[in-house]
Amino acid sequence: MQMKKIYMDHAATTQTSKEVVEAMQPYFLEKFGNASSLHSFGREAKDALENSREIIAKSIGAKPEEIIFTSGGTESDNMAIKEIAFINREKGNHIITSSIEHHAVSHTCEFLEKMGFKVTYLPVDQYGIVNPADVEKAITSKTILVTVMHANNEIGTIEPIAEIGKICKKHKIPFHTDAVQTFGKIPIDVNKMNIDLLSSSAHKLYGPKGVGFLYIRKGTKIGPLIHGGGHEFGLRSGTENIPGIVGFAKATELAVKNMNKESKNEIMLRDKLINEVLKIPNTRLNGHPKERLSGNAHFSFRGIEGESLIMHLDMQGIAASTGSACSTKSLKPSHVLTAIGLDAVTSHGSLRLTLGKDNTENDINHVVKAIKEIVENLRKISPFK
Amino acid sequence: MQMKKIYMDHAATTQTSKEVVEAMQPYFLEKFGNASSLHSFGREAKDALENSREIIAKSIGAKPEEIIFTSGGTESDNMAIKEIAFINREKGNHIITSSIEHHAVSHTCEFLEKMGFKVTYLPVDQYGIVNPADVEKAITSKTILVTVMHANNEIGTIEPIAEIGKICKKHKIPFHTDAVQTFGKIPIDVNKMNIDLLSSSAHKLYGPKGVGFLYIRKGTKIGPLIHGGGHEFGLRSGTENIPGIVGFAKATELAVKNMNKESKNEIMLRDKLINEVLKIPNTRLNGHPKERLSGNAHFSFRGIEGESLIMHLDMQGIAASTGSACSTKSLKPSHVLTAIGLDAVTSHGSLRLTLGKDNTENDINHVVKAIKEIVENLRKISPFK
Repeated sequence: MQMKKIYMDHAATTQTSKEVVEAMQPYFLEKFGNASSLHSFGREAKDALENSREIIAKSIGAKPEEIIFTSGGTESDNMAIKEIAFINREKGNHIITSSIEHHAVSHTCEFLEKMGFKVTYLPVDQYGIVNPADVEKAITSKTILVTVMHANNEIGTIEPIAEIGKICKKHKIPFHTDAVQTFGKIPIDVNKMNIDLLSSSAHKLYGPKGVGFLYIRKGTKIGPLIHGGGHEFGLRSGTENIPGIVGFAKATELAVKNMNKESKNEIMLRDKLINEVLKIPNTRLNGHPKERLSGNAHFSFRGIEGESLIMHLDMQGIAASTGSACSTKSLKPSHVLTAIGLDAVTSHGSLRLTLGKDNTENDINHVVKAIKEIVENLRKISPFK
Repeated sequence: MQMKKIYMDHAATTQTSKEVVEAMQPYFLEKFGNASSLHSFGREAKDALENSREIIAKSIGAKPEEIIFTSGGTESDNMAIKEIAFINREKGNHIITSSIEHHAVSHTCEFLEKMGFKVTYLPVDQYGIVNPADVEKAITSKTILVTVMHANNEIGTIEPIAEIGKICKKHKIPFHTDAVQTFGKIPIDVNKMNIDLLSSSAHKLYGPKGVGFLYIRKGTKIGPLIHGGGHEFGLRSGTENIPGIVGFAKATELAVKNMNKESKNEIMLRDKLINEVLKIPNTRLNGHPKERLSGNAHFSFRGIEGESLIMHLDMQGIAASTGSACSTKSLKPSHVLTAIGLDAVTSHGSLRLTLGKDNTENDINHVVKAIKEIVENLRKISPFK
């Protein structure tokens, strides 16, 4: 008998929806044209491209021409941060970010430091929240960009980006947010929230891997990261990935339509999961108790190696993570957990469970039971006890 | 009755093969993990990634760890050229390229000129061929990169890259080639041809859009264009597009297996097409008569606007192009046609027909007949006659 698999790593990636795969299909096999071609195959592709752009733009209150398709969240972050920095170099060389950004942002900022830029990495409180007042205090006459994520990919904390956006607007500094974990899950209005640049990736919301977008507010001075044939209003060259873009638009439509329902269900399951897991002695919840992603639960278990825990869960068919998928192969403690004040030992005993639309109450019961048993067994052999 | 459509724009993009779509399918719906995740879904994705990398590496005589997956040919070109340039800046600031490169190369070189690099754009002969002796003559003590395409995307001319590679090796200068039009169509051996960096894109060989690779010879000093989680040996961050990469590997397998047969068939059809079209008065073939891509036929018709010609062909269900898909919306004459000595009027009367594996002799007959009629009709109303 095959073991039932339970996937609780939706922050890493999600299953592509059947509806999304179906929407993409004709663009592989029949409507396969290059959107730059003048003939009917090309026009068909171009129509699909512009229709997708409209759907996505509308979902965040943007204009279609403010959406640039990219290969994913990481490319979008790189383009936003580097190209805003380089184009404004004459004006200033100071960037403000937080100390808990995804590596696509933090490593890009570190690269810019090597290129002569100065970066302020703002601290966060014990829940991982950036204080908007700290952003305002950090602004100097040389500040050319503020980049703070919408929600953290490890501990799920949602940042007060509307307040940060307001401050940036007041000081006329472009504000970028990495919304990879929130687009399609939390309502976003780039105007109400005063966001100038926003990164997103399709595969976090049941869309395909290899496609993302960067929202760029009209009037924002920026150049391309990738030069060439001048696609995407001259800002991102390369033949557009039409099947991927069509899939992204379909995933966006579904996400917008089901946002309320899915989010309510996830919160209900997440809170049950959190309540049950916190009954295990010497266990703490990381991240904010309320201001957190609907699907995110992140724990530290004293005296446990997080990796052993996820390996044992995996043996029982449960897919979970210690933190960010990108850094699972690193032995360094997570920079996010360090920033919220965890010591290295506590950090290493961490478990991230991220729920998705198809998880059920049965899944939660099953996972809670498994965690309780594994933690008990691992603690019996732990050198820390 | 629906009009039969004939697609002869394979240099712009190709239909994704059914086998490729089938190979990708499970990676959307079942094996959807993030290749960086430690659990079974992640390992499954990682296995698919590394298996694909091996297939592609083997096809050009490379080692798997020399293949970096990207979002396509344009990104690969950008990474190769910019990152070789930036990392060697202390050593020198001179780049050698040809005057007929794809915009992904030429516009990237122009960007580097703005950043203080010097670029030599080598001339080509009447057929579009770069003289390897010119490459050697252009080399100075400051030269840090030579980048010459394997075959031209407009006129189909195949460049003597093995000879250029030999010269670069002798002078210890990294040699990059844009092989977007040749990978999977002409045998490539990076060692025999002394290639240090090679760009390719899946959608030109019946693979999906949105995925490509950059071959980087072991020992070549290069940094990332896109920073983040450290995927692809730290050289290209961003969650790997597993379905796309699996599709690319399948397309590569099919291309290698069928290369001989498909190329022979295309040459037979192409030569018939060329012979028939050249019977139209005041018509010339652009590009080399022999050293050309098996599927490429490129003509200039005196007294005709290329755009009118392709519009009329399109009305008859025939998809063709005036030149590069990327520059179809520009009114400037093609830099490639200018480089081979065509005047602006002749350039504007151009037609590119690029054949693929599914074109038939009937298609050729149909297209020849259509071109003859349209050219005759357009000439009747031409102001140039």
